Amino acid sequence: MTAAPRFAPVILAGGSGTRFWPRSRRARAKQVLALDGDQTMIQQTLARLLPVAQAGDVWIVTNHLLDRTIAEQLPDVAAEHILSEPAARNTAPACALAAFLLEPASPDTVIGIFPSDHVVKDSQRFAEVLAAGIEIAASGEKIVVLGVPPTRPETGYGYIEQGAQVLAIEPLKSKIPVKVFRVRRFREKPDRHTAENFLAAGNFAWNGGIFLWSARTLANAIREHSPDMAPILEKIAAAHGTPEFESVFAEEYPKCENISIDYAVLERRSAKGERRSEIYCLPADFGWNDLGSWASLHEHLGQEDTDNVIDGATTGLVTIQSTGNYVYAPGKMVALLGVDDLVVVETPDALLITTRDRSQDVSKIVKSIHESGKMEFI
Amino acid sequence: MTAAPRFAPVILAGGSGTRFWPRSRRARAKQVLALDGDQTMIQQTLARLLPVAQAGDVWIVTNHLLDRTIAEQLPDVAAEHILSEPAARNTAPACALAAFLLEPASPDTVIGIFPSDHVVKDSQRFAEVLAAGIEIAASGEKIVVLGVPPTRPETGYGYIEQGAQVLAIEPLKSKIPVKVFRVRRFREKPDRHTAENFLAAGNFAWNGGIFLWSARTLANAIREHSPDMAPILEKIAAAHGTPEFESVFAEEYPKCENISIDYAVLERRSAKGERRSEIYCLPADFGWNDLGSWASLHEHLGQEDTDNVIDGATTGLVTIQSTGNYVYAPGKMVALLGVDDLVVVETPDALLITTRDRSQDVSKIVKSIHESGKMEFI
Repeated sequence: MTAAPRFAPVILAGGSGTRFWPRSRRARAKQVLALDGDQTMIQQTLARLLPVAQAGDVWIVTNHLLDRTIAEQLPDVAAEHILSEPAARNTAPACALAAFLLEPASPDTVIGIFPSDHVVKDSQRFAEVLAAGIEIAASGEKIVVLGVPPTRPETGYGYIEQGAQVLAIEPLKSKIPVKVFRVRRFREKPDRHTAENFLAAGNFAWNGGIFLWSARTLANAIREHSPDMAPILEKIAAAHGTPEFESVFAEEYPKCENISIDYAVLERRSAKGERRSEIYCLPADFGWNDLGSWASLHEHLGQEDTDNVIDGATTGLVTIQSTGNYVYAPGKMVALLGVDDLVVVETPDALLITTRDRSQDVSKIVKSIHESGKMEFI
Repeated sequence: MTAAPRFAPVILAGGSGTRFWPRSRRARAKQVLALDGDQTMIQQTLARLLPVAQAGDVWIVTNHLLDRTIAEQLPDVAAEHILSEPAARNTAPACALAAFLLEPASPDTVIGIFPSDHVVKDSQRFAEVLAAGIEIAASGEKIVVLGVPPTRPETGYGYIEQGAQVLAIEPLKSKIPVKVFRVRRFREKPDRHTAENFLAAGNFAWNGGIFLWSARTLANAIREHSPDMAPILEKIAAAHGTPEFESVFAEEYPKCENISIDYAVLERRSAKGERRSEIYCLPADFGWNDLGSWASLHEHLGQEDTDNVIDGATTGLVTIQSTGNYVYAPGKMVALLGVDDLVVVETPDALLITTRDRSQDVSKIVKSIHESGKMEFI
């Protein structure tokens, strides 16, 4: 083996907080909450990268509502590596900025794009798959995507259609090889029927938003597929580290197209065909969960669907003929009597009562509060 | 008309607090809670008596867990009129004690027995019915009970079987006469089938625990029907106002039979027959509700069964596709999404989640907490 390539994870942490209302708020989005343990989502994200990356090589792209909280939560990440977008422009400009920042000095550095608000059950396997992906991304103009093995006909995710298997990488400390497939196509969020067909076909994976490519590969891909965006981001990158950076960033960044990296680069590149696109998919078989709703948090924390998951009820719990509930009520004596599949979340200023089935609609509540102008609650 | 007879209401306030857990506790029973407005139940009870009674004539029988709170809530009631039972002995000894206290100095005073934790929608009508009842109770050895017109085949209350109507009293300020019926029998809590028959028969009323009789009548009834109890209570009454009262009360009162006034006097007396018993029933047509559970509070406060009743959510409320819920969450932004007929009650140290159907079983939760030894929560 050759020396490990330099690896720079870019953690995307600009999301707003609506799905986990009332715990999540604009300035307390999901990624800075400790939803499933002592560590916040972004702390977990960093912790699971550190077996493969140096903390000094980590970048964060976030916004001004969250940057201070993130800096406090991640003291090992350099302050100048925490970039606060002057305006939300989806993921393509955020990813591309990292490429243009790193390309001049170290074009071979492998950039990894990581959402900041997902959970992984098997961190060791995550590191193995990641190390394999970095190895591939370091060799030429290749793009690596991690594909989550689908377990249900989910209509809320994009899908990756895998082509031929080209390789299997044996991790150093594991006997489970990491398979490497070509990517045939990226598929947008499907309808139910299409999702069922994908699941039945067996060669489709969920797109979990984790990508690996060298700085040069990503920068060139932006130049080729989003030519308007490239000069803007090169100008911003050139100002990094100078006193003018903040003003250049604020001035130029909003000019970028508001587009996801999937649309801006991956789908356009994959149109070249399975072989010429050089996009590879590695199965993300490490217990990934995007925690998209209170119901997915219940699923993540409970052993069985019928389990009551009671967060923070440190002083006591009484359940009588009640199953499948998720309750967050820190420090309270919680009593459930004859209720099933509810979600009840209590914070110092708010109380949410819904069901697991309806919890994906919590954003409707946030929208309603927004319309009422009570901004202190969102 | 002759001068109005002297009237001494005796408010029974010794109940413990399990049905409205977690708001009610041993030392914060339902009667000292403000469940349906600014006034507590016992404050409402006193307020609706004052059009007919002098505050100086009001007596309270309670216990040592509640007496200080009650004294604070009812500053107009004389301290020596607040009696704290050394041991709970049901309602007969409490009622009888009042009779033996008042009989020596003013045997013609009409004593009224009133639960402290019921609500009344029409206070003016309450005063009218009460005034009529006092008038009857003042004339000879008569006993008056108020009978609540039943609206459903309730199995949780005792029933009064009415006999012939003997009179109709025209209130001073109202055109609705107060009808006066003889009482044929008292009937224990019936099963469902019997309750349905009672409702269909049309001459049955719920026993709401409100009774009127002169001090002499009640004292004599105790002497006749509970002869063991009479000398004990006469001894306690004789000590009232002396330095020995507390010790005599503590020593003697627990010797009394643990029995309700219904069993001890009313049922035994009614066995004399409809005419000889001289028990009369006046319809309590003033919107009585005993608030027996969170579900009855929902019924009392809401206009429609499908109304959401949200107590204390002073900062905001969002409801989406949710009906018939009762929520108590003081000072919180409350959000309901896709939930029906729930009861959710949040206090500083506890959170109850149940349904309106199951809320009569809240005492099971209190029992479970009691068994776990966490006495600070009950």
